[in-house]
Amino acid sequence: MAVIDINADLGEGFGNWTLGDDAALLDVITSANVACGFHAGDPLIMRRVCAGAVERGVTIGAQVSYRDLAGFGRREMDVAAPELTAEVLYQIAALDGIARAEGGRVAYVKPHGALYNRVARDPVQARAVAEAVRAHDPALPLLTLPGSAMYEAAGGLAVVAECFADRAYTPEGRLVSRREPGAVIHEPEAVVGRAVRMAVEGTVVAVDGSEISLGARSICVHGDTPGAVDLARAVRAALAEAGVEAAPFA
Amino acid sequence: MAVIDINADLGEGFGNWTLGDDAALLDVITSANVACGFHAGDPLIMRRVCAGAVERGVTIGAQVSYRDLAGFGRREMDVAAPELTAEVLYQIAALDGIARAEGGRVAYVKPHGALYNRVARDPVQARAVAEAVRAHDPALPLLTLPGSAMYEAAGGLAVVAECFADRAYTPEGRLVSRREPGAVIHEPEAVVGRAVRMAVEGTVVAVDGSEISLGARSICVHGDTPGAVDLARAVRAALAEAGVEAAPFA
Amino acid sequence: MAVIDINADLGEGFGNWTLGDDAALLDVITSANVACGFHAGDPLIMRRVCAGAVERGVTIGAQVSYRDLAGFGRREMDVAAPELTAEVLYQIAALDGIARAEGGRVAYVKPHGALYNRVARDPVQARAVAEAVRAHDPALPLLTLPGSAMYEAAGGLAVVAECFADRAYTPEGRLVSRREPGAVIHEPEAVVGRAVRMAVEGTVVAVDGSEISLGARSICVHGDTPGAVDLARAVRAALAEAGVEAAPFA
Amino acid sequence: MAVIDINADLGEGFGNWTLGDDAALLDVITSANVACGFHAGDPLIMRRVCAGAVERGVTIGAQVSYRDLAGFGRREMDVAAPELTAEVLYQIAALDGIARAEGGRVAYVKPHGALYNRVARDPVQARAVAEAVRAHDPALPLLTLPGSAMYEAAGGLAVVAECFADRAYTPEGRLVSRREPGAVIHEPEAVVGRAVRMAVEGTVVAVDGSEISLGARSICVHGDTPGAVDLARAVRAALAEAGVEAAPFA
Repeated sequence: MAVIDINADLGEGFGNWTLGDDAALLDVITSANVACGFHAGDPLIMRRVCAGAVERGVTIGAQVSYRDLAGFGRREMDVAAPELTAEVLYQIAALDGIARAEGGRVAYVKPHGALYNRVARDPVQARAVAEAVRAHDPALPLLTLPGSAMYEAAGGLAVVAECFADRAYTPEGRLVSRREPGAVIHEPEAVVGRAVRMAVEGTVVAVDGSEISLGARSICVHGDTPGAVDLARAVRAALAEAGVEAAPFA
Repeated sequence: MAVIDINADLGEGFGNWTLGDDAALLDVITSANVACGFHAGDPLIMRRVCAGAVERGVTIGAQVSYRDLAGFGRREMDVAAPELTAEVLYQIAALDGIARAEGGRVAYVKPHGALYNRVARDPVQARAVAEAVRAHDPALPLLTLPGSAMYEAAGGLAVVAECFADRAYTPEGRLVSRREPGAVIHEPEAVVGRAVRMAVEGTVVAVDGSEISLGARSICVHGDTPGAVDLARAVRAALAEAGVEAAPFA
Repeated sequence: MAVIDINADLGEGFGNWTLGDDAALLDVITSANVACGFHAGDPLIMRRVCAGAVERGVTIGAQVSYRDLAGFGRREMDVAAPELTAEVLYQIAALDGIARAEGGRVAYVKPHGALYNRVARDPVQARAVAEAVRAHDPALPLLTLPGSAMYEAAGGLAVVAECFADRAYTPEGRLVSRREPGAVIHEPEAVVGRAVRMAVEGTVVAVDGSEISLGARSICVHGDTPGAVDLARAVRAALAEAGVEAAPFA
Repeated sequence: MAVIDINADLGEGFGNWTLGDDAALLDVITSANVACGFHAGDPLIMRRVCAGAVERGVTIGAQVSYRDLAGFGRREMDVAAPELTAEVLYQIAALDGIARAEGGRVAYVKPHGALYNRVARDPVQARAVAEAVRAHDPALPLLTLPGSAMYEAAGGLAVVAECFADRAYTPEGRLVSRREPGAVIHEPEAVVGRAVRMAVEGTVVAVDGSEISLGARSICVHGDTPGAVDLARAVRAALAEAGVEAAPFA
């Protein structure tokens, strides 16, 4: 029986501001990438999300980011490696402590936004992130893109690939840039169909029609766009119907 | 043989800004109150201070604060209890993770600045702080003022009293307000003499000439004023000469 | 013919986070209290709101606040007077410059949240706010509560009273605290009826049934609650039907 | 008689943290690049520096930056152009308002740190900065590197070149990268000699021994390194002795 993890970004509000429907998503996903206060999230939100995740058996991951609330962590920053390592370690530790207070723990690390993209190609920042994870707990896996520079930089850490049911892929297995037309797939049925194929066969059809192998153990769903929760529910239901078990990878 | 702890605030720079001489103080004190990023301190500074503390056998405490970089945590804020608990828990956890990465751990908690003063008289915020400590580790002691509202709010946590060799005391054992003349004692010899008396006899002479009992297990020295490091060294040397052992309380 | 101003808080998003429907409100109100970046608002949001206000002939006011993004400016802070003056001046000036770049200007100042409540009773902070307004432009009026400490602290500045159609009043003309039951009036028809009475007769019926005089030149409507925009539209329509002209006070 | 401007960065503390000796530098320089709160500086510091500058007849410039207190504005950020324009406009306007409250005004704009370097080669960010200056006041000059991308991006704005007496130059007139040996000249006499040559002849001797023409109207001196103020005083004295008048360029 095929098994796949479903992950989403949670806890991305801040103070008086909310984003997405954390409670609804927690009923659909198996792994929660919880914001740690650097691009979003505050201690109270973190605590509530961790409590909800523990209650529902959802695995908690640290969604670590550049320190950039104003830019929601979406702007690449030339942070020096020792500083980036310390900042990522700080975020993992803060969330882990909050998760433990709620009966859980941080079970994996996923870089967010611009940091996610940067470590997919910049070995210096990728090593800096890996060093932080290792300093906290060398048993923690990193969740990232297939083919990311994180793989080579991991230095012994486990690196787990994720895929995106609503994104177009190049024949080389890369995501089509969001600047290109067709980069994001909007038709719910197409997204659901791709998710099932990713889980059952481990493949996706690239933009040139070729079938490529992904080897992803987790599917990322989005929570902050209109209809996102409904789409996530449809993906989860279709996976169940196809006989795929949804379970945390970590 | 009398034993006393010597604590000081460390890691209170931020980014490009420095404050005090952490390296010099680490050679004098036995307990370091390390800023956790809310009033001062950043992850890299925290990491360096923790590394230095571990190297020298100095105990690490979490110096938790209101979220107020611009005001250095010196302005009272009406933070609601659940939020304050989450914020304090976040800070303790972040520092603890960094300390562990350097081979140490957080061994006590000391509120900073306006939060220190507030929890000395406000049972609601005091309980919120206590709940955070308990959620992280019920074995962690809180370092605070004798007579503070923290004692009643602690609910089973250990609360340890500290004293200040350079501050005048009322006959009731309270600190004379900094707004009053003579609140701060500037003559190094007087400060050193009071420190020895506090450690050996556990007493201080109040502003009215009466002798009061303090029962403090730690003396707080300051690090960010001119001559502060020299004064701290003189206190430590005089304690040694008086046969007092300087050792961490936690 | 009776004339009344309708004001609302705008531009209270931050970065990726949104709050309320600024575009819809701009079609209903006559004065926009624009957040200046200290409790909410960022330079790009400020620019867009100012452009929209200028386009629709809506007057721009500076909604100044404590520096507290995490608390949305809703937590009282013990900010020293010279610092508060400088912070308020900074906010007014930043918004004024942005407004001028869009063809408008700051025409009044309204403290936000905890600062609004604090200056209603604390003469020290009220004077600090007044000094900032005076330093920027002594011709700018302050928009505040009737009976606020701002009146005495204004020292020559114009102070303009506002009222709230959805809030209960004490017989003394104060707002009933939000902690009391019935403090906020939720029935749209009641709110609309009160707004018309406030505009036409200048009075409101207090919680004890007595009629009190308000003398307010502006009605504050809320924009960030469900149904808020519809309610604001209903108030405006009812005012028009009652022959009241909606026009900026400044 | 030759005339040259001497500029330095001022107001780069934040809250409880200080940096450099603003009061001493104000007696030496003719133009103050005042931090506007995004990389350093807070409203109270800005106000004090502006008051000091007005008192001494020193011209005030807005030292605008990325929003990055933790990195002191020294990390390049991929900020989108509309956001960068709004952020720079906000900073100029805030400082201008504070300067006007003290009897001065912002007379020029100088990008800080990573933004300074970025706009020297990135036309998109350079145009974004120029647009902000133009939106505030098209008569304000920009102070920047000779050969900077700002020149082409300025679109009608005045761009004024500055030079650095303590930095080595390539034969093409560029600064030698700080990563190269010899990039910074530490001998006070050499620095003073170069400053006089820059002011009197408008030239500098490059690393290959060739003489190059700089055409700079301002010399930048540093204020935050040991001996910086003494060096600045020596430069100013040597210029006077060489018959060069120190006067603001703006």
